[in-house]
Amino acid sequence: MPSETNPPDQAGAFTDDYLLYLLAQASAGASQAFHAELAKDGIAVSTWRILASLYPDFRLNVGALAEQSLLKQPTLTRTLDRLTKSELVRRVHSAADRRGVLVELTQKGRTLAAEKIEKARAHEAFILKNHSKSEITALKAMLRNLRFCSAGAA
Amino acid sequence: MPSETNPPDQAGAFTDDYLLYLLAQASAGASQAFHAELAKDGIAVSTWRILASLYPDFRLNVGALAEQSLLKQPTLTRTLDRLTKSELVRRVHSAADRRGVLVELTQKGRTLAAEKIEKARAHEAFILKNHSKSEITALKAMLRNLRFCSAGAA
Repeated sequence: MPSETNPPDQAGAFTDDYLLYLLAQASAGASQAFHAELAKDGIAVSTWRILASLYPDFRLNVGALAEQSLLKQPTLTRTLDRLTKSELVRRVHSAADRRGVLVELTQKGRTLAAEKIEKARAHEAFILKNHSKSEITALKAMLRNLRFCSAGAA
Repeated sequence: MPSETNPPDQAGAFTDDYLLYLLAQASAGASQAFHAELAKDGIAVSTWRILASLYPDFRLNVGALAEQSLLKQPTLTRTLDRLTKSELVRRVHSAADRRGVLVELTQKGRTLAAEKIEKARAHEAFILKNHSKSEITALKAMLRNLRFCSAGAA
């Protein structure tokens, strides 16, 4: 007989043991409250990701920044234009390649990023409060590996 | 002096040790190749998520299905209309609540889901091939916890 249940009770479902689902659901679940808090301060997720990726003094070209911030280039470009206007980031010329353009934080951007990173760390501590230090270290190590694992996969 | 590096070498960056970033990046990295394979077969990610969430014989209302498939309701409704037309899912009345409508797979939908789930499991085995069974069990247990961890977080 078909089951009639809500997702948290969907025991035995394929999705309850499938890594890609668990990753997507954990990512969405863990981020929800923090993204809502950013929204209350008028900060879009795209803005937050750019600020956090450049903090404190990284200089990235647009391709590397897109990869790092998980933003598609049109969203990234639009957000960068907005952040440049608000003087949170600026474009600078690459020392290695005079035609290359890199993005970095301004002092104003760095201050805002530092403030939000403090809140992000508090959120992280809250959601990990029931886990031991060694569990957290192991989890993060596996997630770091999984970032680049798809290359060559079917 | 500011660093001029690509993301994989961005050692010491805030994002390299921040759980929410690692989750988002691991989720994107692990899914990329599988989603590309689905696209080659003409299957949208939204379709795949609905098929997988209902497999083999779950009946879910639209709210529960949105939560389970991580789709926003407009995308979900649009995709369900398409899948109903292609006879992959059907809407049935709830036994518990005569006004309630539930979604379930048709036999055709179940066959397609089974085929894609087999490929998904092969992809999962590939990306986890360097990890021990106990590491994988621990990872999945932590991800399951993180799905619902945000409630009450700042």
